[in-house]
Amino acid sequence: MLFERAAVIGTGMIGGSFALAAKRNELVRAVVGVARTQRTLSEARKLGVADETTSDAAKAVARADLVYLAAPVRSIRSLLRDIADAVPRGCIITDAGSAKREIVAAASDALPSHCAFIGGHPMAGSEEAGVAAARADLFEGCSYFLTPDAQTDPQALETLLELVRGLGAEPLVIDAQAHDEFLAATSHLPHVVAAALCATLAPLGDDLARFSGTGLRDTTRIALGPDEVWRDILLSNADNLCAALEDFRVRLDEFESALKAGDAERISTLLRLAREARGRVSGDSSIAGRRPDKNVGPPEHG
Amino acid sequence: MLFERAAVIGTGMIGGSFALAAKRNELVRAVVGVARTQRTLSEARKLGVADETTSDAAKAVARADLVYLAAPVRSIRSLLRDIADAVPRGCIITDAGSAKREIVAAASDALPSHCAFIGGHPMAGSEEAGVAAARADLFEGCSYFLTPDAQTDPQALETLLELVRGLGAEPLVIDAQAHDEFLAATSHLPHVVAAALCATLAPLGDDLARFSGTGLRDTTRIALGPDEVWRDILLSNADNLCAALEDFRVRLDEFESALKAGDAERISTLLRLAREARGRVSGDSSIAGRRPDKNVGPPEHG
Repeated sequence: MLFERAAVIGTGMIGGSFALAAKRNELVRAVVGVARTQRTLSEARKLGVADETTSDAAKAVARADLVYLAAPVRSIRSLLRDIADAVPRGCIITDAGSAKREIVAAASDALPSHCAFIGGHPMAGSEEAGVAAARADLFEGCSYFLTPDAQTDPQALETLLELVRGLGAEPLVIDAQAHDEFLAATSHLPHVVAAALCATLAPLGDDLARFSGTGLRDTTRIALGPDEVWRDILLSNADNLCAALEDFRVRLDEFESALKAGDAERISTLLRLAREARGRVSGDSSIAGRRPDKNVGPPEHG
Repeated sequence: MLFERAAVIGTGMIGGSFALAAKRNELVRAVVGVARTQRTLSEARKLGVADETTSDAAKAVARADLVYLAAPVRSIRSLLRDIADAVPRGCIITDAGSAKREIVAAASDALPSHCAFIGGHPMAGSEEAGVAAARADLFEGCSYFLTPDAQTDPQALETLLELVRGLGAEPLVIDAQAHDEFLAATSHLPHVVAAALCATLAPLGDDLARFSGTGLRDTTRIALGPDEVWRDILLSNADNLCAALEDFRVRLDEFESALKAGDAERISTLLRLAREARGRVSGDSSIAGRRPDKNVGPPEHG
């Protein structure tokens, strides 16, 4: 056991999956689940996600040695303020937010020095949401980012690395700024692109079904994700995301001008380069098979 | 048996799957497979896709009562000229091209009046290619467009509708122009968007793997499709595709301005509308479960 008592604040798909995985892998002895609605809390108890539940975050962290914040990014900022006075000495606090700079900054503002905060981001999940979608194996084989800074207690980092490995995930240590730049391109841009694609198709109405194949379904699936969660992610990383959008427009222009010119050779080249880049995206199965990462520092920018 | 002898020109994933399905469902007695390379031809024989093979399209159609053209869109245009003088009286000719106007026009220019051409497009397939990817059940539950025109022999259309239903697909009769407008939005635009997204990510190089989750993999999967096939599709429907790209840019602008303004409410609304539109895309399983379409005429534009 790494922790005796974990407060999981936000028992949705990610928080619920963390609780199930942490208990199954004997990383955490007991879980206190925190959610806004009684319905979610009773479902969390029924599914074995939480041993106890409460809607009071401060109460939940009072006797915890681990706090796992799995709420929408902007709710995490206010939750940090809510729990600040109640966090016990030596408690380790982490989160699962998909954009890290704002959260890391808010944590260092809000939290007392007698506890340790390290930002986290498991590259896991799907378009599903809610505790019913929680799975004990959700993190297996996925990249799991940790974003310590100069002030981070090395011992707390070692403990969290052990926790992440215990979940079956691949820990990657990176600074929050670099994380947000990479994720703007590999996650937040694709989400906006998929959503804009769906908006473009909206006028087709009910004809959409008969005119859609697997390609369209795959390309737009992430647009089924929960609005509140993605609104917060996109806003929290808006500067990097807008920069990525500019890059994307340039690539789109290349295709459009080749199409307007009827330049077959150019289009072949653009399609080939895109296909080769797609080949460098991790396999369509989990990346668990890959040589486990040696916890290197921030990857260089490409 | 609807046909005694089908010439399948282009024994790749689509042509090969048609041959397997047509024989398994006793729609076609014998298949002559046509491909450019001996390697493909011997593989087609080995996989039971073709009973006989040749690289000479004209020779293959000489005694056929059905010709199934499953080559890249622009190759189909030249193949129509290659087979024109050899097509027997009463032969029915169809194709599987994903853009229809050019092919329908080329067919009426090239083919003699003693045979019947009807354009076709099965909404089936994947990013895979080649005869090794052929599956007898590829068309089951998919939309299968047929694009007759005013000159089309009604009896030939009835026979092809029977053939399509026999494959387990859902026949939809639509004119070539309307087909190309719809597919520009639901298939050709998503392909360009996925490819442009991959091109945007290319500079990340080998870092791409560790920073990509299931969302990115799904959103970009179609960019793995064969260059030559997609080059021809995009070029053959460039006018409608460029119009769809304009619509897409407008939607992208809406997201970008809301992000730059930090307008949370607006972003929530845009994400919700996109999610609702995605909900009208046919289910992530096949659409076989849906009430079979009553072979209505062209769907209205949304």
